[in-house]
Amino acid sequence: MTVRFGVLGAGRIGQVHARAIASVDGASLQAVADPMAQAAKAVQDAYGGDIRTIDAIAAADDIDAVVICTPTDTHADLIEQFAKAGKAIFCEKPVDLSLDRVKTCLQTVTAQNAKLMVGFQRRFDPDFLALKEAINRGEIGKVEMVTLTSRDPGAPPVSYIERSGGIFRDMTIHDFDVARWLLDEDIVTVYAATSNLVDPAIGAAGDFDSANVVLTTPSGAQCTITNSRRATYGYDQRIEVHGSEGSVSVENHKRSRIEIANAAGYQTPPLLDFFMSRYLDAYAAEIASFVAALQSGSAMTPTGHDGMMALALADAAVKSVETGRAVAVSEVLG
Amino acid sequence: MTVRFGVLGAGRIGQVHARAIASVDGASLQAVADPMAQAAKAVQDAYGGDIRTIDAIAAADDIDAVVICTPTDTHADLIEQFAKAGKAIFCEKPVDLSLDRVKTCLQTVTAQNAKLMVGFQRRFDPDFLALKEAINRGEIGKVEMVTLTSRDPGAPPVSYIERSGGIFRDMTIHDFDVARWLLDEDIVTVYAATSNLVDPAIGAAGDFDSANVVLTTPSGAQCTITNSRRATYGYDQRIEVHGSEGSVSVENHKRSRIEIANAAGYQTPPLLDFFMSRYLDAYAAEIASFVAALQSGSAMTPTGHDGMMALALADAAVKSVETGRAVAVSEVLG
Amino acid sequence: MTVRFGVLGAGRIGQVHARAIASVDGASLQAVADPMAQAAKAVQDAYGGDIRTIDAIAAADDIDAVVICTPTDTHADLIEQFAKAGKAIFCEKPVDLSLDRVKTCLQTVTAQNAKLMVGFQRRFDPDFLALKEAINRGEIGKVEMVTLTSRDPGAPPVSYIERSGGIFRDMTIHDFDVARWLLDEDIVTVYAATSNLVDPAIGAAGDFDSANVVLTTPSGAQCTITNSRRATYGYDQRIEVHGSEGSVSVENHKRSRIEIANAAGYQTPPLLDFFMSRYLDAYAAEIASFVAALQSGSAMTPTGHDGMMALALADAAVKSVETGRAVAVSEVLG
Amino acid sequence: MTVRFGVLGAGRIGQVHARAIASVDGASLQAVADPMAQAAKAVQDAYGGDIRTIDAIAAADDIDAVVICTPTDTHADLIEQFAKAGKAIFCEKPVDLSLDRVKTCLQTVTAQNAKLMVGFQRRFDPDFLALKEAINRGEIGKVEMVTLTSRDPGAPPVSYIERSGGIFRDMTIHDFDVARWLLDEDIVTVYAATSNLVDPAIGAAGDFDSANVVLTTPSGAQCTITNSRRATYGYDQRIEVHGSEGSVSVENHKRSRIEIANAAGYQTPPLLDFFMSRYLDAYAAEIASFVAALQSGSAMTPTGHDGMMALALADAAVKSVETGRAVAVSEVLG
Repeated sequence: MTVRFGVLGAGRIGQVHARAIASVDGASLQAVADPMAQAAKAVQDAYGGDIRTIDAIAAADDIDAVVICTPTDTHADLIEQFAKAGKAIFCEKPVDLSLDRVKTCLQTVTAQNAKLMVGFQRRFDPDFLALKEAINRGEIGKVEMVTLTSRDPGAPPVSYIERSGGIFRDMTIHDFDVARWLLDEDIVTVYAATSNLVDPAIGAAGDFDSANVVLTTPSGAQCTITNSRRATYGYDQRIEVHGSEGSVSVENHKRSRIEIANAAGYQTPPLLDFFMSRYLDAYAAEIASFVAALQSGSAMTPTGHDGMMALALADAAVKSVETGRAVAVSEVLG
Repeated sequence: MTVRFGVLGAGRIGQVHARAIASVDGASLQAVADPMAQAAKAVQDAYGGDIRTIDAIAAADDIDAVVICTPTDTHADLIEQFAKAGKAIFCEKPVDLSLDRVKTCLQTVTAQNAKLMVGFQRRFDPDFLALKEAINRGEIGKVEMVTLTSRDPGAPPVSYIERSGGIFRDMTIHDFDVARWLLDEDIVTVYAATSNLVDPAIGAAGDFDSANVVLTTPSGAQCTITNSRRATYGYDQRIEVHGSEGSVSVENHKRSRIEIANAAGYQTPPLLDFFMSRYLDAYAAEIASFVAALQSGSAMTPTGHDGMMALALADAAVKSVETGRAVAVSEVLG
Repeated sequence: MTVRFGVLGAGRIGQVHARAIASVDGASLQAVADPMAQAAKAVQDAYGGDIRTIDAIAAADDIDAVVICTPTDTHADLIEQFAKAGKAIFCEKPVDLSLDRVKTCLQTVTAQNAKLMVGFQRRFDPDFLALKEAINRGEIGKVEMVTLTSRDPGAPPVSYIERSGGIFRDMTIHDFDVARWLLDEDIVTVYAATSNLVDPAIGAAGDFDSANVVLTTPSGAQCTITNSRRATYGYDQRIEVHGSEGSVSVENHKRSRIEIANAAGYQTPPLLDFFMSRYLDAYAAEIASFVAALQSGSAMTPTGHDGMMALALADAAVKSVETGRAVAVSEVLG
Repeated sequence: MTVRFGVLGAGRIGQVHARAIASVDGASLQAVADPMAQAAKAVQDAYGGDIRTIDAIAAADDIDAVVICTPTDTHADLIEQFAKAGKAIFCEKPVDLSLDRVKTCLQTVTAQNAKLMVGFQRRFDPDFLALKEAINRGEIGKVEMVTLTSRDPGAPPVSYIERSGGIFRDMTIHDFDVARWLLDEDIVTVYAATSNLVDPAIGAAGDFDSANVVLTTPSGAQCTITNSRRATYGYDQRIEVHGSEGSVSVENHKRSRIEIANAAGYQTPPLLDFFMSRYLDAYAAEIASFVAALQSGSAMTPTGHDGMMALALADAAVKSVETGRAVAVSEVLG
């Protein structure tokens, strides 16, 4: 069975997913919707499919699944619309910036018995998967400390920041999900310390550009997350997991594997500097996983619950910054 | 203009090229030919196109170019047939195992004013290209010493060895081409020392499984090549170029970027162990280069002359082993 | 002028310093004191000097400086005794486990105009110095995030833990000093999260074996410290400093520079597993710095104030664990 | 028993050995001899001992062993003089530049039953030893290919070149010894290709500044050696040994372990650029091995025979360059 996709939203991330659909066996791009005709046309030209409205896609018989790549404030509504329309749903993170709205949305998904997967593509990165498999094989014993380093190559424009929900809901949310995935237990408390070091306009907009976060768990395992909106050497994405029997880590992706030696020393290239090139394989594997789950009828992960919990950690981080203390996740989950 | 391809030969390397054609913008797989119906069908199923005979492809109006992936002893005849048929030709290395036959074949190509590119895919590997570009930018000054390490993960069966033309014409020929590409000047002498260390059956078949080669040039630049038919850690493909101002090298491709640390030390994965995974990107870039040259009318490289010169170096290496001395390339070129 | 040393305490760290004195130009080991005759004899046999009592060393004309390597609870008294005796003093960290006692002790040092240096040897590690110099040269711009990873190869016996003052005053205190050295500004708040993952006996003794700490500063620069009493792969001592223009990091010390490749992958040796081998050069450079400061009359660092501030950070960390919030350093400094 | 040393020759390498003697337990520097009074005085000032004539050292009762660091053309005579004087002898490589002279000298050593060790310090480098031990433990199976890369940071003055015996007897001789040590079997043939790329004055003096060498053995194992008198990034000293079960390699020594990342990429420091700093530990371990052999009465290696065989390989390399063919070692050994 080929899964026939409609892509909602033809912006940057919509193009990423259209490309992934085109490259995955068992998936076909049937339709794309975007209020900007030019954007929809660009996706169509590159990857095929019809241009339709969102409502037409919801009503269509030849659409099995949708990928929601529209602005964040439309995600929950669209999930509900397509859950009711009986389509399988892949939704880019986050489900919503409001935890309450996420909850009601997920209730609808459950009531409709809809299939929903949330887009945390890092879980599908081949190297991160190899790390996870090493942990699962018992190579490092029991997980004790997860260290996540996540730095963007450069700060987005303030217009983006203003709609983003803040650094924790926009950027750290990926790290929160990775932390949950690797710790494989509930997070009990969140402590966060923030700074404005990169761009004063980000501070003026009420957000932060640098942060450290500490997560604790019932077992005593912990996780630290280091974020910055700036790294001159590229898109810095590292994981280290320390366990009772050893450690496992993942290196960054450089632009090539050459090394130049001269009187100044040994030099290797900077990192890939864009999330789309860095996670190209992950985006394809993510859609492939969604397709495989649909074909086999097996469970999809990350789930809507995963999406909600990552947002809860972000909310707890915000509250930690406000109060200067470690915040129990239960405080924000209500 | 889309270049419409016929693929001749649907074996392992034929599949590689069919896949490359399917993935390259501006190329389409129009037809595949193979005496083994099942092999042709497999390519068709995976990448599309019709199944036709070679002669039908030569006669077809809807074929612009062919990729010759048939057994080596048919290459020269097919090049001549398709040169006369007015098709652009991409031929897997080698053109032939006989230098004389290569010469007459290339004369036909010239007489027909045909377009011919020979398949040395390493020139298109993104990391090797980055190394070459660093040299071209002057990062290491004048090239002095090229060091090529090329080890297969394991020895092929003796049945393959017997038809291969021997290690120099089958395996080292890629290194000879890379050496010529990086040295960017004529090779004057070839010295080769061989051993049988891996599989006695290879020796019984009159071939060698381990070799070191030294090449010299008019400028005094040199190249060493180290070959083995065995490397327990995977497909070992390294280049180092030392120059008057510095050195540049390329690292191998490991199976993932994880590192595990425990009481035994720090461990990273073995190398990719197959030429098709290791050079996946290179095969696609190679076909893309062929297509781009056809579309723009610009010159194609590697040329038939490049194919002939790599074979001449292999012949000189054979003669060096027989005589125990450095052999002038002019001796074998005649 | 050769600086003539008395070493007080001939235990493990006393031997380290006696060895350093013996290896440094301009230093001579004149006397050693230890209530355990055998320990004193061992130092004498290895590095020379007389065996004397502490009081005799204080009274001696042929002693210019002492190195205090006795149990922690004697440090402050000995500093005061030797300050009054007019000797230059090198004291192993910490000055005392009580911040109040440190304050009164430093008042005596000031009143006597005595020369005092506190033993934080990491500031003298050649690689850490190279990192600091890179920062000072402006290679990474303004310091934004300091990441310290510090893991012991294995937990000490509980008997040691019980006298140690706890993980923050015993182990993290080195990281606190390094953080202050690299951030080069005051620390404003300390947050710490602790666990017991390694040895339940450590928890039973009221201490922790695993910790993460976050430090903040007036400029917004931050520091994270990750500590564990266990690392199967050796003594893990890493620094990374991220700045506005780039990052600089220091790698660990492995037991040798070999790498073995086989079917399991690529393996390098585990780390040096003892602070004395890891910081061998640092201990010698530390004494050399003390000697050079005495000879030139220049200021010594780390100072008694540095020792006090590292202890204050440890006290703040303890309070953070008790309260679950970020603790202002001013709260513990009084 | 402390071994009491006389050092003959107080030049650069004499200072290296005096320093080694001073640092090794069980060794004492008793006397130094040099026609340049100032040089002898400098060694005495730094490491102690008397200043005496060579003849006085030969006649002295308080001298157990000598280290011969005088100009090469005096080595054989001094070995004979001190063999007859009953002293243990450590002689810097080479014993002589003439293979015949080496043979007669070694006959005298044998006749006198004298103890002689030749100075190939690389065998004592801790990393090279770790590599050798990995081979001995069977980690890579049977040795198949040894790859030695040896590049000086810069060319010596032509005045040095002229007295050196040429690149093979002066520089490659160390690699020849390492090759023999690692291959652990006789060398059958030597092929060498040379160039002048670094300094035309070296060519004018009849020598070469760049070379590649291939060695073969009875088992089929081979060794390649790449030499250059120039490497902008420092003193390049690498070994890789490929075997039937895997490979083992040794990395270079950089000036520190820091890495700087910025927009230009990742940079680590250049290599140590002097043989004395690079092999500091090796020189000390070499003297310690000599002392231990004297104390225990066990055999010393490298032996005089090792010194002779390395020279024979150098002679064969010279002949290979002259003839353009692989030269049997038996041809030069006579």
